[in-house]
Amino acid sequence: MKHLSPFIQKLIDEFDKLPGIGPKTSARLVFNLLHRKEDIRSFSDALNNAYQNVHFCPECYNLTDDGLCTICNNPQRNKKMICIVSSNQDVEAVEKTNEFEGVYHLLNGLLSPLEGITPDKLKIKELETRIKDNGVKEIILALDQSMEGEATTIYLSKLLGQYDVKLSQLARGIPMGANIEYTDEVTLGSALKNRKQL
Amino acid sequence: MKHLSPFIQKLIDEFDKLPGIGPKTSARLVFNLLHRKEDIRSFSDALNNAYQNVHFCPECYNLTDDGLCTICNNPQRNKKMICIVSSNQDVEAVEKTNEFEGVYHLLNGLLSPLEGITPDKLKIKELETRIKDNGVKEIILALDQSMEGEATTIYLSKLLGQYDVKLSQLARGIPMGANIEYTDEVTLGSALKNRKQL
Repeated sequence: MKHLSPFIQKLIDEFDKLPGIGPKTSARLVFNLLHRKEDIRSFSDALNNAYQNVHFCPECYNLTDDGLCTICNNPQRNKKMICIVSSNQDVEAVEKTNEFEGVYHLLNGLLSPLEGITPDKLKIKELETRIKDNGVKEIILALDQSMEGEATTIYLSKLLGQYDVKLSQLARGIPMGANIEYTDEVTLGSALKNRKQL
Repeated sequence: MKHLSPFIQKLIDEFDKLPGIGPKTSARLVFNLLHRKEDIRSFSDALNNAYQNVHFCPECYNLTDDGLCTICNNPQRNKKMICIVSSNQDVEAVEKTNEFEGVYHLLNGLLSPLEGITPDKLKIKELETRIKDNGVKEIILALDQSMEGEATTIYLSKLLGQYDVKLSQLARGIPMGANIEYTDEVTLGSALKNRKQL
């Protein structure tokens, strides 16, 4: 867009860096925002405040504005039980179930040799230190059922086998609202194998 | 997300205000951004710079960082020929064709009584002043083929009929790459009626 103001172009470029937002969507968002001038300022303030205050929790690597994150800081959470997830969004998803009373450990990614994400790029060494230092008793692997998630689950289950911890992964089965007809054979096979007595 | 840092929540809320971005996508964008701290700062700077420098062109109501926008400022553009569009993105779209040498007039919206967008909410009075003051000879209506776009086209063609200007709207017809079979009957009907002699 040759005749665009460089200030507008720069802002479009910043939006364009976000995942899943292409140049056309970026332009649409920026033009919308530029018509609401009061919101530009509060957006910029929100970014500045996040920049200055948000950092990684030194315990679980979730994001926090405090010393430890609110979950690690909560005395009612069981520190001997760790749920391993790949991202911040996954913490939110598990928290919403209200079924988990332990703490989390964020790998901040999944193994993907093709993209150069090897074990040393993830927070795995930090996980081992936590297991040793805190006398962790149980570890739940809650990783995506993708190629990368599976690879990470296999890698971690081997690595963590050397520690005296109860190790598990999320149950596989048919999801809520699923149609048997349209459920893939791997999921349906797992659901059959792990059938639950009524 | 009850245990989220308020700084993170505020930033998610700001993204959430953007059109077509829901709370889940906002969270994904924010978490992604928070992992790239250097980009948060440049994003915030880009917003601040846009806030301080970008304003509406007093002539055509496009966005600019200069007195007039680059198009109105260009002596080679024909000031007697105005293309009426509803948004900044539409200017970009028409400019990309390299087929238009006149200037633009942005209504900054389309008529929509249901949403409270009446003629006085659009830059229509400003358009009339421009027509009178600049001796405009030709006006092209380049508005969406939506309900709102059609209503605006009808309203403007009646209103502008009182001025001594050549008034036209974009041709209707089958678009590039279209399949006759899948073209709707209104479009195909227009394409037949306006068929071009070979």
